[in-house]
Amino acid sequence: MKIKPNLNDTYLTKKKIGINENFKKIKLDVIEERPVTLFLNDQEIVTMMTINDYPKYLGIGYLLNQNMINKKTKIESIEYHSDLSTIVVRTAKSTNYENRLKKKTVTSGCAQGTLFGDVMEKFKTIKFNNVSKIKKTWIYDLSKKINLTPSLYLKAGAIHGCVLCQKNKPLVYMEDVGRHNAIDKIAGYMKVNKILPNNKIFYTTGRLTSEMIIKTVQMRIPILISRSGFTAWGIELARKANLTLIGRAKGKRFIILSGDKRVE
Amino acid sequence: MKIKPNLNDTYLTKKKIGINENFKKIKLDVIEERPVTLFLNDQEIVTMMTINDYPKYLGIGYLLNQNMINKKTKIESIEYHSDLSTIVVRTAKSTNYENRLKKKTVTSGCAQGTLFGDVMEKFKTIKFNNVSKIKKTWIYDLSKKINLTPSLYLKAGAIHGCVLCQKNKPLVYMEDVGRHNAIDKIAGYMKVNKILPNNKIFYTTGRLTSEMIIKTVQMRIPILISRSGFTAWGIELARKANLTLIGRAKGKRFIILSGDKRVE
Repeated sequence: MKIKPNLNDTYLTKKKIGINENFKKIKLDVIEERPVTLFLNDQEIVTMMTINDYPKYLGIGYLLNQNMINKKTKIESIEYHSDLSTIVVRTAKSTNYENRLKKKTVTSGCAQGTLFGDVMEKFKTIKFNNVSKIKKTWIYDLSKKINLTPSLYLKAGAIHGCVLCQKNKPLVYMEDVGRHNAIDKIAGYMKVNKILPNNKIFYTTGRLTSEMIIKTVQMRIPILISRSGFTAWGIELARKANLTLIGRAKGKRFIILSGDKRVE
Repeated sequence: MKIKPNLNDTYLTKKKIGINENFKKIKLDVIEERPVTLFLNDQEIVTMMTINDYPKYLGIGYLLNQNMINKKTKIESIEYHSDLSTIVVRTAKSTNYENRLKKKTVTSGCAQGTLFGDVMEKFKTIKFNNVSKIKKTWIYDLSKKINLTPSLYLKAGAIHGCVLCQKNKPLVYMEDVGRHNAIDKIAGYMKVNKILPNNKIFYTTGRLTSEMIIKTVQMRIPILISRSGFTAWGIELARKANLTLIGRAKGKRFIILSGDKRVE
């Protein structure tokens, strides 16, 4: 594994004292969560709650997955200022997003709905061809390997994991308090390290909501697996993009919701 | 219970066909999820993913919990336009938030960080006195009653529940794809129906992150229980506000993280 959870990083968990049902004091490992603010050039974008282990990957990944930059955008620098809890992504040219926003804010503010509309427009243009396959045994192997990897989840709980995989091998294992952060960090890692998506498999411990489907499709990864459940709109979006969507993968069980032709 | 999950509402779940691990077709109940856009007067605020059972409560609750309106704000109307999937909350006077935003967007856009700063400033001013108590048996009663209530969670999964309670009685049980929506719907319900918070208990199936602590404190509810885990910052915020925070409440077990003096 190129990146896996770092259990020894004292920045990521804290010891806390709790009181149990017998009114006895107990010592607990608890996950840290911090607000971090992201800027795209001069533009303040969002304040995120994160464990903050990979702020630069998180910043780049967020902008990519929100369609504020794209894979061709030339990144000049990614700065993380720990004293200000701020990530600044600087691009060579000002982005389409910033230009649209400047126009839009005058009339209706944050352009949040416009942004969502843009993401959906782009989503509609993506359809996976049947390039890659997945074997039933890989689903079992991946679930087992990921569950057995020592993680912040096993140490402290209250965290989600996302794992970029190839065949039956986990490659990049990111965790965060929100599954949207964990997937964004992987998107950022892929952009910075120029990782090709088309032969990859994405595994998440979190639910398969529309947001996770949209992000996986935007990242051009054709197969998405989760141990958790799914929503109707998530399934519909996966079917439109011909994404292979596998939910409730636990023990020997799983349910294929979309793109079953890819499963051997 | 005044409001409980409506399992017969065909708007909230859909039948979907999946394929199981033996490559057999199976029929599933799956939760619906829809994008809905919220306006405060002329100002577009956010696009939310929701099951959309109570858009008006959701809209009001979101604005309250984001500090964009407060309990004194005079609401002129709450409109839901199903054809446009849009909620419009109209206030008698334009709000502080809108006025600040107009100034702010000229220089740095969405003012998202400023907004977060405002919420935290207000949070610091709230500290619960030891007005209310909770009995150990109520924790068990509430968990049991809530778990046994027929819910969208039991029918379709992939959903969170939030429940407003008094003593050992669940009063308002809301579910949504995000726990932040479920809590916002309860905040909206409380504002519209003028429910007093100080003798209430809040129960959530979701994790006790900073966001849930901040919202519960802003809603002035002194006791928060969850069957799930917690974050370090969540615990610290609860201790600052003297909120009674109880996590991992399952079966006969629970852990008090803050405000243990209130538990009898």
